[in-house]
Amino acid sequence: MALARVARSGLRRSGGVVGSNTTERNIFFERLSGSLEKINVHSNLTSLSTIKGLNHMNFWSRGIRTTPHYQFPLADRLVETESESEHDEPRYPGLEATKPGEKPRVVVLGTGWAACRFLNGLDTKAYDVVCISPRNHMVFTPLLASTCVGTLEFRSVSEPVSRIQSALATSPNSYFYLASCIGVDTNKHEVYCETMSNGGLPHEPYQFKVAYDKLVIAAGAEPLTFGIKGVKGNAYFLREVNHAQEIRKKLLLNLMLSENPGISEEEKRRLLHCVIIGGGPTGVEFSGELSDFIMRDVRERYSHVKDYIKVTLIEANEILSSFDVGLRQYATNHLRKSGVQLMRGVVKEVHPKKFILSDGTDVPYGLLVWSTGVGPSQFIKSLNLPKSPGGRIGIDEWLRVPSVEDVFALGDCAGFLEQTGKPVLPALAQVAERQGKYLVEVFNRMAKEDGGKAFSVKDMSLGDPFVYKHLGSMASVGRYKALVDLRQSKDAQGISLAGFISWLIWRSAYLTRVVSWRNRFYVAVNWATTLVFGRDDSRIG
Amino acid sequence: MALARVARSGLRRSGGVVGSNTTERNIFFERLSGSLEKINVHSNLTSLSTIKGLNHMNFWSRGIRTTPHYQFPLADRLVETESESEHDEPRYPGLEATKPGEKPRVVVLGTGWAACRFLNGLDTKAYDVVCISPRNHMVFTPLLASTCVGTLEFRSVSEPVSRIQSALATSPNSYFYLASCIGVDTNKHEVYCETMSNGGLPHEPYQFKVAYDKLVIAAGAEPLTFGIKGVKGNAYFLREVNHAQEIRKKLLLNLMLSENPGISEEEKRRLLHCVIIGGGPTGVEFSGELSDFIMRDVRERYSHVKDYIKVTLIEANEILSSFDVGLRQYATNHLRKSGVQLMRGVVKEVHPKKFILSDGTDVPYGLLVWSTGVGPSQFIKSLNLPKSPGGRIGIDEWLRVPSVEDVFALGDCAGFLEQTGKPVLPALAQVAERQGKYLVEVFNRMAKEDGGKAFSVKDMSLGDPFVYKHLGSMASVGRYKALVDLRQSKDAQGISLAGFISWLIWRSAYLTRVVSWRNRFYVAVNWATTLVFGRDDSRIG
Repeated sequence: MALARVARSGLRRSGGVVGSNTTERNIFFERLSGSLEKINVHSNLTSLSTIKGLNHMNFWSRGIRTTPHYQFPLADRLVETESESEHDEPRYPGLEATKPGEKPRVVVLGTGWAACRFLNGLDTKAYDVVCISPRNHMVFTPLLASTCVGTLEFRSVSEPVSRIQSALATSPNSYFYLASCIGVDTNKHEVYCETMSNGGLPHEPYQFKVAYDKLVIAAGAEPLTFGIKGVKGNAYFLREVNHAQEIRKKLLLNLMLSENPGISEEEKRRLLHCVIIGGGPTGVEFSGELSDFIMRDVRERYSHVKDYIKVTLIEANEILSSFDVGLRQYATNHLRKSGVQLMRGVVKEVHPKKFILSDGTDVPYGLLVWSTGVGPSQFIKSLNLPKSPGGRIGIDEWLRVPSVEDVFALGDCAGFLEQTGKPVLPALAQVAERQGKYLVEVFNRMAKEDGGKAFSVKDMSLGDPFVYKHLGSMASVGRYKALVDLRQSKDAQGISLAGFISWLIWRSAYLTRVVSWRNRFYVAVNWATTLVFGRDDSRIG
Repeated sequence: MALARVARSGLRRSGGVVGSNTTERNIFFERLSGSLEKINVHSNLTSLSTIKGLNHMNFWSRGIRTTPHYQFPLADRLVETESESEHDEPRYPGLEATKPGEKPRVVVLGTGWAACRFLNGLDTKAYDVVCISPRNHMVFTPLLASTCVGTLEFRSVSEPVSRIQSALATSPNSYFYLASCIGVDTNKHEVYCETMSNGGLPHEPYQFKVAYDKLVIAAGAEPLTFGIKGVKGNAYFLREVNHAQEIRKKLLLNLMLSENPGISEEEKRRLLHCVIIGGGPTGVEFSGELSDFIMRDVRERYSHVKDYIKVTLIEANEILSSFDVGLRQYATNHLRKSGVQLMRGVVKEVHPKKFILSDGTDVPYGLLVWSTGVGPSQFIKSLNLPKSPGGRIGIDEWLRVPSVEDVFALGDCAGFLEQTGKPVLPALAQVAERQGKYLVEVFNRMAKEDGGKAFSVKDMSLGDPFVYKHLGSMASVGRYKALVDLRQSKDAQGISLAGFISWLIWRSAYLTRVVSWRNRFYVAVNWATTLVFGRDDSRIG
């Protein structure tokens, strides 16, 4: 502790005062800009935008959206090709670099678990903060599956980011921008963004830049489709509130369509065949919720077609593979008893009304939910940064991206570099949240040591490295039953339990983890009303 | 009363027993079908469907949907042109006419106030019921304006129709069909329907027919646009929950877009200019809610742009013209004090970013809500039935459509025929609800007198005619203030009050009128949490 203090105070001195940063940065810029290739970026921009526009529409109409959307492979080099004077032109409006004497600006990409935990804890007396994300709220993902069938309302699982960090709404130099980051220039310390575009803005797509002193990339991951044809066009993912809305709309639509006169038996069975691909916690929880919905609400309120509805969960290996073997067995038995058909299989191709397994079997379906884990997004892939095994942004034990200055990455989009000797952590909310919490400490320490501004950290000590300690896993399996696995790793010994008590633990644990009191209250109210009145089945929109 | 009973028992005898209906109907059919024109309807059908498809998409993408959507001008004559044997082909799957000994089937078009009050009260021991509507829930319209800004959640104002009449979900011969009615054959006693079409059904658009013993048309009305160019493409209506969702999304999007760097002052002012056209209760309540939202939530959570947002309410004549003059003055002052700009004007043309008034003024806007009352829908216009002044379906004092048998109409789509000597009633929830309640009695009486089946009513007395007694009007104007006008008509004397007490009356009255205990509970919870935590501003989707 004393040693660290000495080290830091030494660094403070050698790091120079805030005033000297500008000169340093200019020198740094000069040194690098010469080595960059000349590319006519302007024309690239236009054509890419057109393609992007099409993709948006396509994803959007299927309720599938990546967070954030966007590909801009050459973005690192974007502005380098033009002369310095042109950068100040309104072609790229935006926030310029902070001036000496101003608070350093932290730019956060994303509004998931990692970003929001970081935003929540950041000392806004020391930093201005700009958060950029295509959605203005955090999603309480563990409870998302419950919203698809109406156990919870959509609003109960979403938390506006301005409630998580009020400086975004009230502080004069802090902002939330509803936009996707399309590129990062780590040399210039700038990010390039494209705003949501149906507002009739003067230029569409509307693009802008934001200069940062520190950049925190917490932009999340994308659902893995393994290049299987037809997944994006026909299946629903379950990562965002609007995915849950789409699933709900489709499910209710199919229930109602199948009541239409003259629909054949076969067609009814198809419409009401709900298939979940992927037996991880999300897939299992959604299957459980669906079977609850069928057993209570469909039987009561869609009695004409109740015998046609069926749930199938398809997994290539074992369901809930990270859980204790006893719990896996419990889950398997419980799901079977609840009427969920469990299948081993690998999907080869997806068509609008059926998909084909690798053994050639045709499976007709009415609703297909794809939940086979996540991988690096196009945006993350496009960044010219070191990568971890698996293609995430490579970070060291302080969540820094080495080789560039002032860039941090955390959550599902980041993984330890191979040279750290640590494994890439799983894409879990608890990992992301813990990293967000850790990074707050790093940032607050940097601020104290005058390391908040761009290029000012140098060899400053950032304190203890990040160490992840797994607290255990939970998953509900429907009908007031859940699994709780408190082992610290897959092969460790430890407590694991399943059943009603676990279900109570599951509900209580999540209820206490919900971010705001408002939503805690709403989740409790939703659970109570579902118990008393059943689920709501209004099909809105 | 005694007289009525004598008359009815006489009629029962002369009306014949249930068994004789079939023969009678056939004779009736033969008599009429000869006089109908021969038209090649099949080809019309196809082309109309194509146009319809386009319209749907167009309306849909703007959040604008008429209830129900669909135009089928020649529908009455649809099946007449082909020989009897062809009707039984699967070209039109559907429910055939009920057989002797079976319960009579009531077909209800719509799920608004009138339809739902009727459904709720109907004796399902005496009747099977089929409800056809493009939405599966009733909307508690008086509170819809509150959902646009998050004071209430969307689900709190929607009530699934299967909760309003559980027979629809559970009785073997009663159904709810999520479809739009596209035509009625009053001679054959059949309605023709087209189902919602994104479910990948075998035939799309999927059409079917439903034979009725009694038909209740409560299909509502459409927003009036007076043929003004650009309204449908650019303005939002406020009649359905998804309209409220779209308005909310647009409002939040504009708030966030205007925070983007590099947006000019002028553009910010445009984006945040919310304009309401029409100073009826809906327009005024929405203006009040908006100003509440601005005063509390925007100031707190969009502080960077709070000075740019502005609300303008434009009305050609006087706001709240049906209210007492003192209340009108109160509302005008209160809205002005709350920052709502009141303008006299008539819109001539609407463009994507501005509209033009008849005096030539250009008004730039970011959000345009159109609420200038309702008129007959395309579907109602297309029906070959007598019309009331103003083009609604013409009814007599028992809500029957004269000149055809077994057809009733009520709510916004129906109006007294000129020869009844009664005025067409205003398009109000209380009129629709009272008519629904009245019609239940008529139907239950018919059932008792064996008049439930098609062509079995003859000269049976239906009891007392419908008499409407206005109970008064209420409107909130924002900031815990409302108007309550208890006069029975515009020119009558009576109690009228405005202010906080009225607001309490307004809230209590609506709370008790909400259909289910679940929603009553949710509305109360929403109001309480809005008071404590402010409004939620997650922008979902």
